[in-house]
Amino acid sequence: MFTVGIILFDDFEELDAIGPWEVFRVAEELLQEKKGENLTCEMTSLWGEKVIAKKGLRLDVHNKLTKDSRYDLILLPGGEGSRAIIADEAAMETITHVAGHSSWVTSVCTGSLVYAAAGLLKNKKCTSHHMCLEMLKQISPTSDVISNSRFVQDGNMVTSAGVSAGIDMSLWLVGQIFSPELARKVQHFMEYYPKPPYAD
Amino acid sequence: MFTVGIILFDDFEELDAIGPWEVFRVAEELLQEKKGENLTCEMTSLWGEKVIAKKGLRLDVHNKLTKDSRYDLILLPGGEGSRAIIADEAAMETITHVAGHSSWVTSVCTGSLVYAAAGLLKNKKCTSHHMCLEMLKQISPTSDVISNSRFVQDGNMVTSAGVSAGIDMSLWLVGQIFSPELARKVQHFMEYYPKPPYAD
Repeated sequence: MFTVGIILFDDFEELDAIGPWEVFRVAEELLQEKKGENLTCEMTSLWGEKVIAKKGLRLDVHNKLTKDSRYDLILLPGGEGSRAIIADEAAMETITHVAGHSSWVTSVCTGSLVYAAAGLLKNKKCTSHHMCLEMLKQISPTSDVISNSRFVQDGNMVTSAGVSAGIDMSLWLVGQIFSPELARKVQHFMEYYPKPPYAD
Repeated sequence: MFTVGIILFDDFEELDAIGPWEVFRVAEELLQEKKGENLTCEMTSLWGEKVIAKKGLRLDVHNKLTKDSRYDLILLPGGEGSRAIIADEAAMETITHVAGHSSWVTSVCTGSLVYAAAGLLKNKKCTSHHMCLEMLKQISPTSDVISNSRFVQDGNMVTSAGVSAGIDMSLWLVGQIFSPELARKVQHFMEYYPKPPYAD
């Protein structure tokens, strides 16, 4: 059983987390149809059982993240609340500890600022929301900060660009962990063939 | 003040609702920076105050939808719960009544099945999730059911294809209601320039 934990906190950006949630949960349902290998995905929280997101969504998580939590893959969304995580020594220790036991350590948007502040992105390629690339470089000067990429992999760390880019990254992860065929089936169910209506 | 109501119910599909939520709430924040015209977007529920989505997300809504609710735009996501709405006479009456007072009546995915069952799509062009296009035609035989479109407009009714297509539709609506420039700014903040990682 492959386990995915999406780490929530007050003022996370809604789509950063719910895009990947949809990808992993659809993959889970498709795998259940076949039996054999499978995954679970749950929402875990750094603080309370109820989380209030940046845009006002109020939701209940499945459990609280502790140093004893174990996931094969952790995903940290972004949002203004990422600054409060960095300021919370206990939260930073918990994330660093759990990350050290995860096969994949991933983030969406400004979630990468937290990993940078924890020293996890030293000498690594990484990215973030386009408005926070300089901040990422300031926090982690040895990082190779990449712009204009939907997501960036370096070893077991994968960081994505802002908000909707977490969907692309999660589809890619499903392809790496299971198969590109499964990722394409998830994409097909979600009809992720976007045509943004107003060209730049 | 332009008001948007996203109508939730048990077993709605998460991204169907949260994609548009992100679009409208980002638009709201960008409009607040300029002052002048503005919008509000809230989550309203057909049944209880707490809603459990199809993939397990548990969230609190802002209020309960009643016949007296008024929104300039309503958006009905899809998900397996749409069948329970169709079976609930009171819920169907409420939706039909509120839709009759809305400038824009919109849906994502199988939300259009509800409108079809309410008779709102008679002789209209419309769409739905790719797996439910035949069901839409069965429920509303006079409808012109369109396939392979991200969203379809007919008068004040706009129906989108499955799941992620609600993001494209919502960006288009922001462009129609406010300006294409604002829609592009929302798209830019959300970094909605998708590159699905595994080509078909």
